Amino acid sequence: MWKKSFVTLAVVMVAVVGLTVSKQLIAANTKPAREGVGKETCYGCHEEVKALKEGSRHANLACDTCHENLVKHAETQGDVKPITKIEAALCGKCHKDQYDSFYRVNHEAGARKEKGVPTGRSPMQDKLLAGHGFTFEHNEPRGHSFMVIDQFVVDRFQGGRFQLKNGWMAIDTTGKAWDVLIDTGKRLPETAMAGNPTCIQCKTSDHILKWKFMGDKGGKWDRTSDVVEVARDTQNPVGCIHCHDPHGAKPRVMRDALIQAIEKDPAKNIFSKNGSTDLRVIDFQGFRKIGVMQKTDSRMMCAQCHVEYACNAGTQWSDGKKVGYDDQRTNHFPLKNAKQLLEHYRNLDFYDFNHPVTGARLIKLQHPEAETFAGSVHDRANVQCHQCHMPKQKAKNGKTFSNHGVIRPRNHIKEACLGCHPKATAEQKLYQIEAVQNYTRGKMRKAEYWLGQLIDTYGVAKRAGVAEGVLVKAREKHEEAHVLWEFWTAENSDGFHNPDLARETLTASITASKEGVTLLNKAIEEKIGTTKAADARK
Amino acid sequence: MWKKSFVTLAVVMVAVVGLTVSKQLIAANTKPAREGVGKETCYGCHEEVKALKEGSRHANLACDTCHENLVKHAETQGDVKPITKIEAALCGKCHKDQYDSFYRVNHEAGARKEKGVPTGRSPMQDKLLAGHGFTFEHNEPRGHSFMVIDQFVVDRFQGGRFQLKNGWMAIDTTGKAWDVLIDTGKRLPETAMAGNPTCIQCKTSDHILKWKFMGDKGGKWDRTSDVVEVARDTQNPVGCIHCHDPHGAKPRVMRDALIQAIEKDPAKNIFSKNGSTDLRVIDFQGFRKIGVMQKTDSRMMCAQCHVEYACNAGTQWSDGKKVGYDDQRTNHFPLKNAKQLLEHYRNLDFYDFNHPVTGARLIKLQHPEAETFAGSVHDRANVQCHQCHMPKQKAKNGKTFSNHGVIRPRNHIKEACLGCHPKATAEQKLYQIEAVQNYTRGKMRKAEYWLGQLIDTYGVAKRAGVAEGVLVKAREKHEEAHVLWEFWTAENSDGFHNPDLARETLTASITASKEGVTLLNKAIEEKIGTTKAADARK
Amino acid sequence: MWKKSFVTLAVVMVAVVGLTVSKQLIAANTKPAREGVGKETCYGCHEEVKALKEGSRHANLACDTCHENLVKHAETQGDVKPITKIEAALCGKCHKDQYDSFYRVNHEAGARKEKGVPTGRSPMQDKLLAGHGFTFEHNEPRGHSFMVIDQFVVDRFQGGRFQLKNGWMAIDTTGKAWDVLIDTGKRLPETAMAGNPTCIQCKTSDHILKWKFMGDKGGKWDRTSDVVEVARDTQNPVGCIHCHDPHGAKPRVMRDALIQAIEKDPAKNIFSKNGSTDLRVIDFQGFRKIGVMQKTDSRMMCAQCHVEYACNAGTQWSDGKKVGYDDQRTNHFPLKNAKQLLEHYRNLDFYDFNHPVTGARLIKLQHPEAETFAGSVHDRANVQCHQCHMPKQKAKNGKTFSNHGVIRPRNHIKEACLGCHPKATAEQKLYQIEAVQNYTRGKMRKAEYWLGQLIDTYGVAKRAGVAEGVLVKAREKHEEAHVLWEFWTAENSDGFHNPDLARETLTASITASKEGVTLLNKAIEEKIGTTKAADARK
Repeated sequence: MWKKSFVTLAVVMVAVVGLTVSKQLIAANTKPAREGVGKETCYGCHEEVKALKEGSRHANLACDTCHENLVKHAETQGDVKPITKIEAALCGKCHKDQYDSFYRVNHEAGARKEKGVPTGRSPMQDKLLAGHGFTFEHNEPRGHSFMVIDQFVVDRFQGGRFQLKNGWMAIDTTGKAWDVLIDTGKRLPETAMAGNPTCIQCKTSDHILKWKFMGDKGGKWDRTSDVVEVARDTQNPVGCIHCHDPHGAKPRVMRDALIQAIEKDPAKNIFSKNGSTDLRVIDFQGFRKIGVMQKTDSRMMCAQCHVEYACNAGTQWSDGKKVGYDDQRTNHFPLKNAKQLLEHYRNLDFYDFNHPVTGARLIKLQHPEAETFAGSVHDRANVQCHQCHMPKQKAKNGKTFSNHGVIRPRNHIKEACLGCHPKATAEQKLYQIEAVQNYTRGKMRKAEYWLGQLIDTYGVAKRAGVAEGVLVKAREKHEEAHVLWEFWTAENSDGFHNPDLARETLTASITASKEGVTLLNKAIEEKIGTTKAADARK
Repeated sequence: MWKKSFVTLAVVMVAVVGLTVSKQLIAANTKPAREGVGKETCYGCHEEVKALKEGSRHANLACDTCHENLVKHAETQGDVKPITKIEAALCGKCHKDQYDSFYRVNHEAGARKEKGVPTGRSPMQDKLLAGHGFTFEHNEPRGHSFMVIDQFVVDRFQGGRFQLKNGWMAIDTTGKAWDVLIDTGKRLPETAMAGNPTCIQCKTSDHILKWKFMGDKGGKWDRTSDVVEVARDTQNPVGCIHCHDPHGAKPRVMRDALIQAIEKDPAKNIFSKNGSTDLRVIDFQGFRKIGVMQKTDSRMMCAQCHVEYACNAGTQWSDGKKVGYDDQRTNHFPLKNAKQLLEHYRNLDFYDFNHPVTGARLIKLQHPEAETFAGSVHDRANVQCHQCHMPKQKAKNGKTFSNHGVIRPRNHIKEACLGCHPKATAEQKLYQIEAVQNYTRGKMRKAEYWLGQLIDTYGVAKRAGVAEGVLVKAREKHEEAHVLWEFWTAENSDGFHNPDLARETLTASITASKEGVTLLNKAIEEKIGTTKAADARK
Repeated sequence: MWKKSFVTLAVVMVAVVGLTVSKQLIAANTKPAREGVGKETCYGCHEEVKALKEGSRHANLACDTCHENLVKHAETQGDVKPITKIEAALCGKCHKDQYDSFYRVNHEAGARKEKGVPTGRSPMQDKLLAGHGFTFEHNEPRGHSFMVIDQFVVDRFQGGRFQLKNGWMAIDTTGKAWDVLIDTGKRLPETAMAGNPTCIQCKTSDHILKWKFMGDKGGKWDRTSDVVEVARDTQNPVGCIHCHDPHGAKPRVMRDALIQAIEKDPAKNIFSKNGSTDLRVIDFQGFRKIGVMQKTDSRMMCAQCHVEYACNAGTQWSDGKKVGYDDQRTNHFPLKNAKQLLEHYRNLDFYDFNHPVTGARLIKLQHPEAETFAGSVHDRANVQCHQCHMPKQKAKNGKTFSNHGVIRPRNHIKEACLGCHPKATAEQKLYQIEAVQNYTRGKMRKAEYWLGQLIDTYGVAKRAGVAEGVLVKAREKHEEAHVLWEFWTAENSDGFHNPDLARETLTASITASKEGVTLLNKAIEEKIGTTKAADARK
């Protein structure tokens, strides 16, 4: 039973994504499934594939374009599994411009860069995230082609044991992860061991046939697998199939926790318009699900990774019990904005870590670009991620294609902004972008200052012997202020995705921190007064 | 009586500023006061106007060029007031290049930018200015055309109720303030209510006929007026008439507190040369004054705003009593440099706010560019503000005009510097400017570090129960160190206006802070020693 | 006896450095020592000179090319000393491109810049180096032509008494120091008096005939001389003769403490290859030494200054006794890397200063570029300093010469990097450089954060009355963490010289600081617990 569902799934992953199919390839494929198995044979068992493929732009592609071993598979009634080619390079044979732009190194975006420096995005992280793995190394993101490599080498992933094979000279080398990396097997000092199988699922599509829905047990890899083994089985950054269904060339998503979150409440999640989304979830006999759209909604495609999610072990609010990787809460998307997040995690009974000074129960935010964008001016105007970050451009042959390099709009304002704002000039738009970001950065820095004040004052209060009741309240203020702040340093738009929400939540963070400082200072003063009076009585 | 003086004043504001009058306009005006009132009729009552106008470059301009309703005004002996057109656009009909350059958005100068960030001009302001409105939002200045808009939208002005009508897309829109802004009527969190009628007088010329000298009661608006009402009656940034007398085209000033300060001591203020200034103050029958110069002294023109001034409510040093807007000290220019300022404010019996940690009585410095420049190498060489900040340039038609966009010399070194330094290259001058600024920034950061140390140590000392006598001395050190420091972060040249004074006063700030830290540390040590000894005896 | 040796030395310094001798000069010198003294006469007494000169590229240069007064010198048997011309300008007559490039101001490298600012190389120095002269002013280095001027005017050198004669306009003027500087004789506030005769020896070659080996007594100047007098006798930045033997045109070194350190252990210093270096040390009869190489090893040439060294008075670890300038330890090169330095100085029984908060005995690191480079990937590939920092370039006349301007490779990647990395592009190499530097800066900022935490926690612990035994351990952690950190902010490559060593030692610094913080926090908690219990018993 399981075997069959697996086979079904395997074949689902067959065809090539995209829009234009080269004539040669079509010519070569007029007899689909040349290995001797006609597509009708495949359809006999794989109705889902037929439904996706027939009538689609990929209809004429033979099954053996992406699958091998089909004859044996058919002859053995599925006992022998076919080989499924999921590499982007295969898609790139027809979709060359998209493929090339994905892998082209964007030198203009600047080298990898630590965030926790005065000029960085999170100058006070060492204090505010103390006790969390991100304090060991936390970089500004680079292009998608580096996403697996950068994840594995970061000092917080696996004790620094994975390194660039050719040292720093390889820092701009893309390709198969293990052509670029080595596993030294050694732990380096001042590193963390925060990597885990779930967080790898956001960086690669390699495990689509090996990872059961939600990472539950049943596939080759699950949430509790050894992270080094999973890492060593990971070669490619997210592939075409993360966003494009290969059989039908339809837009899709495959990240499990996203699908779960949207299915849970299709009417009220951040992507719903008029009470629903266009996402049709297909369940492959309990092994895993994909979500297919009729029309591209890149907000959902990008939200497979660019969201706040829980992917680490944590702790329960209710009773302080550890939550391990056996628990599905270690693979969870809230899909909520900063104002609702703390309550969401309280209800989920999960938090990430305790601050070492205050003991506050903190959420470590990831990169909630989807959530910050939701409800913004641009979102309300039906702008989607790809319009600004993957703008259309002309290839050398004159064809228009969507740049899969994922650019920073500020470096390509003409393509990213002026299509919708034709009356503006590039310098005007840059000026506007920077004004928003400067304002938001100002609020972030203030939020950080006040979080720091709260932490310092807490330390003083604790040493002064202030009553636990006051400390409890101060910790709650810390918990509140933290989420509202980190939402913004964790995302990468410096507030541009949603300036109003940024202002609202960052100032709410400041207010919460100030309230904490005020109640602590009051208690400290009272305590000192009481002590002096007691001393005087002696 | 008052009515008459008001009418007099009104007509004073008539003519157009400038040097060249287009032939058409002169042709059209060969019969001055075409409305039927010859200029001689006007001069009958308005002798001051005659004195200014006759023989001047504006002599041939008819009164109705800038005034309407003159016939009725004359017929009713002044009971019906004339309409006075004070808009810069009218002046711009003849002085097009000046007008256009004033309103041209200077994208190269960069977008609006919060100062209180690590890379900004005042990275530690949240700690050092704690308790003051500037901690809510404090931006690098933009061009003059934004001055009213930026003042009204800043989060410290009026609780954030004034916002850009079209959101951030309007951040580079100039024009009438209320075409660009809306009054939401709502207070936003983490904002201050520091705006007031007086501080608006530095940003606009709109109230010239509505604001009595010093903002005393008697005009439509005064220092105690409702700031929202005054704001809503304000449309334009400082106009031509702020610096150019419209009747006679003479250089002038109109900002009341500046005139008051110069009149008080014409021989010894920062603009005096050989014991006096060229400023002739004309009093319009007790309603208000203007100061007219024979020769342009842009040091005074710019000092209408680019000075340290008191424009907020405050407190008296002597008795801690509040000083409200009914008190003229809330509209006051010291015109002194950093070394004399604290004593000046002590003598004036006025300070701005108390630091929440130390309780020190602090002056909030504004933007003392005039004072920092006074006595500098460039000042002693008779260089004036406009030579560097409004350099001459060629218009398209070949005419030379003074750029009224007010530029940053470092972005236009050829025009701003090389006229006087012809042997230097632009890269040399930029290097020299940056060397001065880097050095001064170094001293500013040190002054901030030590102020921070003083504040932190004060907190420790207070909690340790150090004697009040010591704390008093430490607060005084804080008061001293603060003025000497903030003088430089509040001004916009990063020390270039006067490197020697910058060094002298910033190091004096550091010394004062260090003295405070030392005396506190000594007292803390003694206190702890005493406590231990007492404990030992028990 | 001494007189003779001095004379010998004087003549040793005769000839001109370099490779190509202009035909005219050679023509004019076919009769060496035209003053009437043939070179054979000179060789009669000066065998060392003969050994260096004969057969060398400078063999045909007459002795009087660089010496005057030779006849009298010979006639008086050495009683009358010859005049020795050591100025680079003389060398520049033949080696024009090298000379010109040395003195050309590198505007592109940016103006002089304080390090202790948020965007600088050492943002927390005011806290971490508190109590040390560097906190008064500490700049990013400029080109070599400024080295004497910059050293003398820096606020920590001699109380700020030496200033630019023409003020900031002279900030890019090169030339004789005392054409550019004046001695005001006045001490400025917030300055230090850290300058001394020894540290001047790294900045100039002017004292080659006046400074006995190691600065011991016997020359015109020694380690205990009045620094103002030595400074006023110093005109030129390091000259050609610092690195090029003028008699023989051989590569050489002359900085005494470097020669001492290499002589002490020729087999195991950082320059040894296969158990030795190519340096042949020549002792001039006990007055001073030079070290001559057969083949250029710019690692040693540059290490005359670009190393960690002790040149200030200090204190002994063993007994807290002061170490004054009479002690040779105030002119000392360890030539060790960060991991070995603390032990080295403990063995030497010398440290620089005590931190005012913790009392830790700290080493003030200088600029250990030689040590950071030692053992790096580039060093192991036999790359030397000059290949990246003084790359070959074409002169106008087509000749290739080594740029003596000493460039930052990142500004000249083509010349500095692509010679050895021909397949790379400039943007790739810049990207790689920046990635290394960003990573290292991240670690430096973390090391600073944790040093700051250690200092703050120490203060709390001390005031809480934590036992001296714990404080001693915390101080030791501070001493350890400090050296491992400052090694990297003191050098100028931001880790590029040796990324692996940077990571290893900076993380070791962080670990040491964290250990200090942990043991202090534990002790504080215990102390507070004990106090509370004691209070409860009362």
